[in-house]
Amino acid sequence: MENTVSQIMVTKSDGRIVSFDPNKIIRVLRKVGAEEQAISLILQQTYKILYEGIPTKKIYKSVFGNLKRMDKSIAGRYNLKNAIFALGPSGFPFEKYVGSLFIAEGYFVKTGVSVSGQCVEHEVDVIAENISELNMMECKFHSTNKIYCSIQHSLYVRARFWDIENSWKEENVDSSKMFFGWLVTNTRFSTDAITYGTCSNLKMMSWDFPLNNGLRDRIDKLGLHPITAIVSLLKKEKQKLLDMGVVLCKGLNTDILKSLGIDESRIPDIMKESTNLCRKNK
Amino acid sequence: MENTVSQIMVTKSDGRIVSFDPNKIIRVLRKVGAEEQAISLILQQTYKILYEGIPTKKIYKSVFGNLKRMDKSIAGRYNLKNAIFALGPSGFPFEKYVGSLFIAEGYFVKTGVSVSGQCVEHEVDVIAENISELNMMECKFHSTNKIYCSIQHSLYVRARFWDIENSWKEENVDSSKMFFGWLVTNTRFSTDAITYGTCSNLKMMSWDFPLNNGLRDRIDKLGLHPITAIVSLLKKEKQKLLDMGVVLCKGLNTDILKSLGIDESRIPDIMKESTNLCRKNK
Repeated sequence: MENTVSQIMVTKSDGRIVSFDPNKIIRVLRKVGAEEQAISLILQQTYKILYEGIPTKKIYKSVFGNLKRMDKSIAGRYNLKNAIFALGPSGFPFEKYVGSLFIAEGYFVKTGVSVSGQCVEHEVDVIAENISELNMMECKFHSTNKIYCSIQHSLYVRARFWDIENSWKEENVDSSKMFFGWLVTNTRFSTDAITYGTCSNLKMMSWDFPLNNGLRDRIDKLGLHPITAIVSLLKKEKQKLLDMGVVLCKGLNTDILKSLGIDESRIPDIMKESTNLCRKNK
Repeated sequence: MENTVSQIMVTKSDGRIVSFDPNKIIRVLRKVGAEEQAISLILQQTYKILYEGIPTKKIYKSVFGNLKRMDKSIAGRYNLKNAIFALGPSGFPFEKYVGSLFIAEGYFVKTGVSVSGQCVEHEVDVIAENISELNMMECKFHSTNKIYCSIQHSLYVRARFWDIENSWKEENVDSSKMFFGWLVTNTRFSTDAITYGTCSNLKMMSWDFPLNNGLRDRIDKLGLHPITAIVSLLKKEKQKLLDMGVVLCKGLNTDILKSLGIDESRIPDIMKESTNLCRKNK
């Protein structure tokens, strides 16, 4: 069966047409923790909807729909990228969210701070400090995958953190602490943005960069899924939680859910999904 | 008469409302070389059209219209900023034009060159070199005065030219030549763009920055008015000249005008205006 459909062509979101590759789905489903039996069932369902030139978005939706029926927390993990988009439209919750990743790793974190450079003042999105490091980050939240960080972003963020680093070094001559400037985005970097950033010692993090330690990997490792990934919650309920400052599913509890006016019969399911979702992976 | 209208409020293009100040018009007209008698006449005409809240754009148009009837080459100088806008919509003629300013000052100039930096390759808009200096410029052409260069522009252009300068210094260890990175725009810089650029040794030039040596001043001093400033030419005739690569009124001659199919009876007037226009000022 796999052989007969392997020649089906699918249309990617950027318009490129490529062969349908079931292994991609298998890899992703294994990564988010789906059981082999579930993967097999989902693949069978996927084959049924395939047609020549089908948009990959449709395949994604079908897989997500099937997963939701089988295991909501696995579906939430599968849909993580969209859950991060759902933190928008403003970039502010994303900055808070990136801060939370560093808090979980033991850093002391501040967001939205004005910092003096050698030449000018800069608004820094996230500062993550521990005994040996001072990390300052510029976060670029994009509402669509089509927008990404170009080399201009790397260049201007690089210059900005050099300006701050120069000033910081003047004032902390004796410090053994290391200073790092970061560019963080929820989408991706262009190739030359990465080339320049890496070469000029700018730390960079995107959805899947650096390899095995991008945003997705960190979220999975730390179990820091956003509440926007919880499938059992309605969009307006998620928005209310974000407005209340509840960004992580870890921060959810039955009292908070009750305070939203959520029917008590739904609460055990939501809490179960949330607990499974933000269980550390691997 | 001046006293009675001095309380008239005018509306600037950015929406701010300020008192009408005839001295501003007098200063500008003197700067472009208008005679005192002409200035007096134009002011009289201006007073006639004033009303409460009149847009400054309307005043500008009235002054320009009156100047055109009196002295076309003075009108062309008065309208220089719009003549630079008329080099658009692409930024390419502006880069050529900035190059011509440096050629006139004795530099050897190249435009649109790919240059290796320490980390990546960069497309450099203008390179102006002489025996003691190597200047590399990023040109930002904007089609409207409302768009200007922000600190992000200063930061990214600064980082870009540091990348090139580092690579150049490695390869030219013994050179006594000075390397300068530039940000050039036909509109203006934000205050912090100037603060950062000046502090970080980025050379900057805008319409009126630096004081007395901005784009306007350089054009006036060098007599390098663009052909788009010639009032006697129609818009489509100017476009044909730009397409032929004739950017400076200095480059105009009767043969070129004939080749455009311009009626011979108009040519002496056009040439007279062009010669007067690109006469060096002060």
